[in-house]
Amino acid sequence: MYFTPPLARLIEEFQKFPGVGPKSAQRMAFFVLNMSDNDVQSLARVLVDAKDKVKHCSSCFHLSANDPCEICTNVRREKSTICVVADSRDVIALEKTREYKGFYHVLNGLISPLEGRGPEQLRIKELLARTAGGTIKEIILAINPTIEGDATVLYISSLVKPLGIKTTRIAFGLPVGSDLEYADEVTLTRALEGRREV
Amino acid sequence: MYFTPPLARLIEEFQKFPGVGPKSAQRMAFFVLNMSDNDVQSLARVLVDAKDKVKHCSSCFHLSANDPCEICTNVRREKSTICVVADSRDVIALEKTREYKGFYHVLNGLISPLEGRGPEQLRIKELLARTAGGTIKEIILAINPTIEGDATVLYISSLVKPLGIKTTRIAFGLPVGSDLEYADEVTLTRALEGRREV
Repeated sequence: MYFTPPLARLIEEFQKFPGVGPKSAQRMAFFVLNMSDNDVQSLARVLVDAKDKVKHCSSCFHLSANDPCEICTNVRREKSTICVVADSRDVIALEKTREYKGFYHVLNGLISPLEGRGPEQLRIKELLARTAGGTIKEIILAINPTIEGDATVLYISSLVKPLGIKTTRIAFGLPVGSDLEYADEVTLTRALEGRREV
Repeated sequence: MYFTPPLARLIEEFQKFPGVGPKSAQRMAFFVLNMSDNDVQSLARVLVDAKDKVKHCSSCFHLSANDPCEICTNVRREKSTICVVADSRDVIALEKTREYKGFYHVLNGLISPLEGRGPEQLRIKELLARTAGGTIKEIILAINPTIEGDATVLYISSLVKPLGIKTTRIAFGLPVGSDLEYADEVTLTRALEGRREV
């Protein structure tokens, strides 16, 4: 017991965060002690507030303080495309490209028998329900190139294709700015497979 | 504006922490959203509680929820020695060695003309007051081997030595387990200067 109890508890709490080890947790706790009383109270409020207000959009399941979310209610977005992703973080990553203008659908994970996650735990039923109206012309699967990702893509496309909806998956290949020499074999194989006429 | 406002604010707050960049802040914020309501509320309480309760010991200025602190009130500690450090974190580091049994004195920084910190901003007056009773036989300066540290050591020893109190500084040299070949010149010079008969 080197730290006085309230400080020890704070360090403990910070250590629970991903990527925060004992040293970082200690640094963060000391940082809190150096903040003003007001700033600490406001930080505490922001924490509770975020947990309180941020829910899943009932249509696309993206994290949002509003339901339906800002993307689903945006009238300028293209109504004919749904981009399917595993996680809300992927929505953010795609939004940052400013390239995609359609809607999203967050699956909440990928099929993973090892982790005991089957298709029924993902929001696939809800995705199919969204295609019912006939306005959806394309479903883009922006899913990681992993075993779990491949399984999920296969499963979803087997359900969506029969509905006559175009189903695509984002391209895998060399990252821009990278060097062919240092690319791993699997990425290079994917890049070859995905080659396009110039 | 990619994140819904309450989430964006939380990410912003986390980014203020030392060593936390945008990606880590995002990961931490998502971690909070995945915590239970109870856990988030308890985290918020622990934050406010730590800030509220942890103060400086009025004798040694170490961070503590009690005043005087657990170390100053421990009757089993040796009353004749004070170990002077720059920061409360240094107290923790020394306590972890389980070697030192005396008292501490936290200066709250080092003399640094560049950062506008003179001796009067440090708790040197308070240190001298503690030596007044005559029980203190040795003052150990556990101060970093930097320019600021050297200046502070010089200043304090010039005040304490005339009082007839033994004044020592912790040793500098090769860290245990390190390799002489890779040590920098300054460290090697210090190690040579500090050589002892075997």
